[in-house]
Amino acid sequence: MEPVLFYGVPHGCSFGSIVALEWLGQPYRLSRIDMLAKTKSNIYGRVNSQQQTPTLLLEDGQPLSESFAILQNIAARDLSRKLGFAQGTEAHDRLNQMLAYLHTSFHSAFASAWTAFKLKDGDPAIEILRELAREKAAEGYAYLQRHMKGREWLVGDSKTIADAYLIGIARWGEDLQLFDLKREYPEFYRYLQKLEADRAVMFAHAIEDGQPAATSGQFLGHVDLAEIEPRLAA
Amino acid sequence: MEPVLFYGVPHGCSFGSIVALEWLGQPYRLSRIDMLAKTKSNIYGRVNSQQQTPTLLLEDGQPLSESFAILQNIAARDLSRKLGFAQGTEAHDRLNQMLAYLHTSFHSAFASAWTAFKLKDGDPAIEILRELAREKAAEGYAYLQRHMKGREWLVGDSKTIADAYLIGIARWGEDLQLFDLKREYPEFYRYLQKLEADRAVMFAHAIEDGQPAATSGQFLGHVDLAEIEPRLAA
Repeated sequence: MEPVLFYGVPHGCSFGSIVALEWLGQPYRLSRIDMLAKTKSNIYGRVNSQQQTPTLLLEDGQPLSESFAILQNIAARDLSRKLGFAQGTEAHDRLNQMLAYLHTSFHSAFASAWTAFKLKDGDPAIEILRELAREKAAEGYAYLQRHMKGREWLVGDSKTIADAYLIGIARWGEDLQLFDLKREYPEFYRYLQKLEADRAVMFAHAIEDGQPAATSGQFLGHVDLAEIEPRLAA
Repeated sequence: MEPVLFYGVPHGCSFGSIVALEWLGQPYRLSRIDMLAKTKSNIYGRVNSQQQTPTLLLEDGQPLSESFAILQNIAARDLSRKLGFAQGTEAHDRLNQMLAYLHTSFHSAFASAWTAFKLKDGDPAIEILRELAREKAAEGYAYLQRHMKGREWLVGDSKTIADAYLIGIARWGEDLQLFDLKREYPEFYRYLQKLEADRAVMFAHAIEDGQPAATSGQFLGHVDLAEIEPRLAA
């Protein structure tokens, strides 16, 4: 069976893996995980012991977790698509560098604001945690805006898994009401708008929103956890 | 000229890149960056615009930043050393997964405690930030201890760049006085102690501490920033 990507809603960083699968153009399925559900699924606990998304269930029934590993796995399935690059090349190093930056400094900049989001109204920690996130994420947006100067894409001269990943997390600044990106980072915002107009990105939004979604790749439909259980490796 | 690794003191996550260079066994040099210095070096600002460590200055004078990218660059220099694995293999996916986990969830678990470390005594944010770090890092140590059950090394059956990276950051739980690892995670602690006895790890500690350090690889000595300036690519 084709690989199945477990993506998280609302607004998980798994968004980038959906975009990358569309860009790859090979058959795949999706399975939806509600990250705010009070009761965690035992079946998904067998796929990902930490109940995190994304996870890519591979053809042999083994789950692969962590966006970075999933995205590099997707890119390596067909290097001729140039979503990634051959090991040992300078482009591969540069892609790893950008992916690492996005997964560590930039992603984690928002972590304390997500913690605050889950606290009860009036908790004195909320403002401290949001201010910490605002400060760190501002450095991130400023760095990325400088990096994009004179560039069309994050790495190299066509879109890669780094662009796919970025578009799934750069939105958090507005989701969490920390920034007005259009006003504060206008050049970076223009690059984000270009990505938002990509068919795979529009598809991924429609999937997250539960709307009719037109694949420009080879999306074969959703599967639910009960259907997947027999496929899991022991 | 051989590559130069800029490592950060005190106790930077660059520690793992020193260990990996020793294990690789090819010629390299080191350059020391004081991460607590009040005045940042302009020369280092040209190497790493965010003044972060590690950075690996490549043979062509281009800097490569982000531990993840540096470690994969080191491993790819000689895959026969098995510090990493060939792209497209299952072992490569598993190594990316573990490295990503360590660089994102585990590394960032400590972030708020490092922020607290830099605040003035008596700041009410300190305890909130330390408690947040303790909670997240506890999940990390517990996960890693479960993962190590029945294993000798983090990925596959010999030491890789994942072990090198881990030993540089797992110590933070005690550095920041958040945990007593020997008492709280005894099995995981035994694995850490095995790594501590590795010659490359002992070398990296001696380097950080400014003590005489016996290379078991091909360390050719330190270089300072003034010597490096002419080598930087325009």
